[in-house]
Amino acid sequence: METKREETGTLLSFRPTIKVLDATMRDGGLVNNFRFTDEFVSALYRANVAAGVDYMELGYKADKDIFDESKFGKWKFCREDDVYAVVGNNDSALKLACMADVGRCNVERDIGQKANSPFDLYRIATYINTIPAAIAMAEHCEKMGYETTANVMAISNATEKEIDIALELLGKSPVKAIYIVDSYGSIYPEEMRAIANKYLEAGVKYGKQIGIHAHNNQNLAFANTIECTALGVNYLDATVSGMGRGAGNCAMELLLGFLKNPKYKLVHILKFVEQYMPQVRESGAVWGYDIPYLLTGALNRHPSSAIKFIGANRSDYVNFYQELLDQE
Amino acid sequence: METKREETGTLLSFRPTIKVLDATMRDGGLVNNFRFTDEFVSALYRANVAAGVDYMELGYKADKDIFDESKFGKWKFCREDDVYAVVGNNDSALKLACMADVGRCNVERDIGQKANSPFDLYRIATYINTIPAAIAMAEHCEKMGYETTANVMAISNATEKEIDIALELLGKSPVKAIYIVDSYGSIYPEEMRAIANKYLEAGVKYGKQIGIHAHNNQNLAFANTIECTALGVNYLDATVSGMGRGAGNCAMELLLGFLKNPKYKLVHILKFVEQYMPQVRESGAVWGYDIPYLLTGALNRHPSSAIKFIGANRSDYVNFYQELLDQE
Repeated sequence: METKREETGTLLSFRPTIKVLDATMRDGGLVNNFRFTDEFVSALYRANVAAGVDYMELGYKADKDIFDESKFGKWKFCREDDVYAVVGNNDSALKLACMADVGRCNVERDIGQKANSPFDLYRIATYINTIPAAIAMAEHCEKMGYETTANVMAISNATEKEIDIALELLGKSPVKAIYIVDSYGSIYPEEMRAIANKYLEAGVKYGKQIGIHAHNNQNLAFANTIECTALGVNYLDATVSGMGRGAGNCAMELLLGFLKNPKYKLVHILKFVEQYMPQVRESGAVWGYDIPYLLTGALNRHPSSAIKFIGANRSDYVNFYQELLDQE
Repeated sequence: METKREETGTLLSFRPTIKVLDATMRDGGLVNNFRFTDEFVSALYRANVAAGVDYMELGYKADKDIFDESKFGKWKFCREDDVYAVVGNNDSALKLACMADVGRCNVERDIGQKANSPFDLYRIATYINTIPAAIAMAEHCEKMGYETTANVMAISNATEKEIDIALELLGKSPVKAIYIVDSYGSIYPEEMRAIANKYLEAGVKYGKQIGIHAHNNQNLAFANTIECTALGVNYLDATVSGMGRGAGNCAMELLLGFLKNPKYKLVHILKFVEQYMPQVRESGAVWGYDIPYLLTGALNRHPSSAIKFIGANRSDYVNFYQELLDQE
């Protein structure tokens, strides 16, 4: 199913094939334990519809046998009834997405026929060494009638050879798109362009779309996202105000301010930010670029130690840096 | 005086020709009216020396006939005695710099022989239509024994033809380096690479170094700075914690975390941030990426209206966006 690599256009043009995915509730849920109010979710849904966003990810399909439901908001589990209760039958062009983590989701039990579900897309999150399991999950979801993507995390720690094998396996799988995921926010634009070109080559060979999910540890989430866009990456993740784990993600406001597709209308996202994001900050959710994330990013480490450092209200950056270097 | 365009290297290599300039007191002075304590300045000086930073810019050489001295801190005027009082005779490898604005500096009266001055470098800030005046100022400074650079501001509003003429005039002038200045933070990396290549071509033709001074309105200051670096731009401006007008600048922490030159030692900047930057924030200085700057940046406008909006504690982004669009 070889496809031609499409025209990538210039800054003043646009590609109708671009798809913007709002991951606010899923990646942002990691910083507030998925405790979004129904009013917030309903307003975000309406903002995304009005702004012309293509997909909205509502959270995870986490396994209740593994995670204690009383310790998380409902969007970690994304029961179909909870979704219907807030967005109704979704009579709009906005498609709804949900993330399923390898090893943390019981797909056979919890993901049934699309006809009985508000979801259009399941995104399978996987590490490079669990790709066969991810493909089995994607096959189940496709059989149930959903679109799927494979989101291969932490690739900055993978070898070129491992990425080649991953792309070949996913190329032959039923997934619609393969995502570049910069989990550690450690990838510089120059490296990102090389990675994007490798993924895009596989995309042409196997007829897959390529996506980008960036993190902002080094203030590069937006830059890396638009650099990928210029090369032909079509699936673009963003979150409102960049809300997401640690340093957060590419901000939806920045992305829609950049894209020239006339269907995208920034003003609806601005309105949502103005009305709803202050309360999220006031509720205690913390995210965004900060020095500890820069340090884990520059050293290509998982941001968990930086999240812990900030959570402890520490600001002894020199000690933290030495602790990181001691682990080298 | 044609020179060969040098090897630009890869991410893992480094160029000894790179020069990092700390502009914290000059661009950061714009958000605290140049009211830095002597302790802050002395500590920043020592941090820059220890970190291997090449130049430290202490402020402006503003004309006292134009600006009321009682309304600004002393670093807007950078009297030689004030500099000596804080940094002594500067017995270090760190060079000291000062900015002189076209039309706002009396060079003949205020810039004397280098032998009687702590400064090594004068940076002439100019708009594209005042370049002849800038060159006259640079000629005076060179005659007095200083290095000079020309910092051509607001180029995102200039035509290609205007930039060509500017580069030709400055190429034939005595300045050591010509700076790309993204005053509005409106330039995307793809455009920045094209601009850098144009400046670098002129640099090869006329034997000039090229510099980059980025603003962070769209979270692109660091990305644009390292993209320029990869192409061969050698003079890199940064400020501690990105402190600078509006959305601020490329953060020194990010830049030194990226550069592979072994002479640069990030830990000394981290130590300074830890010890001195909280008090600057507490004193009321406000800077950094925020939605109003994204909007002026994306619309290629001067950030002054965004600075005013934030200074008024407004957060009605939709109204602000409409006000900006009404001015189109």
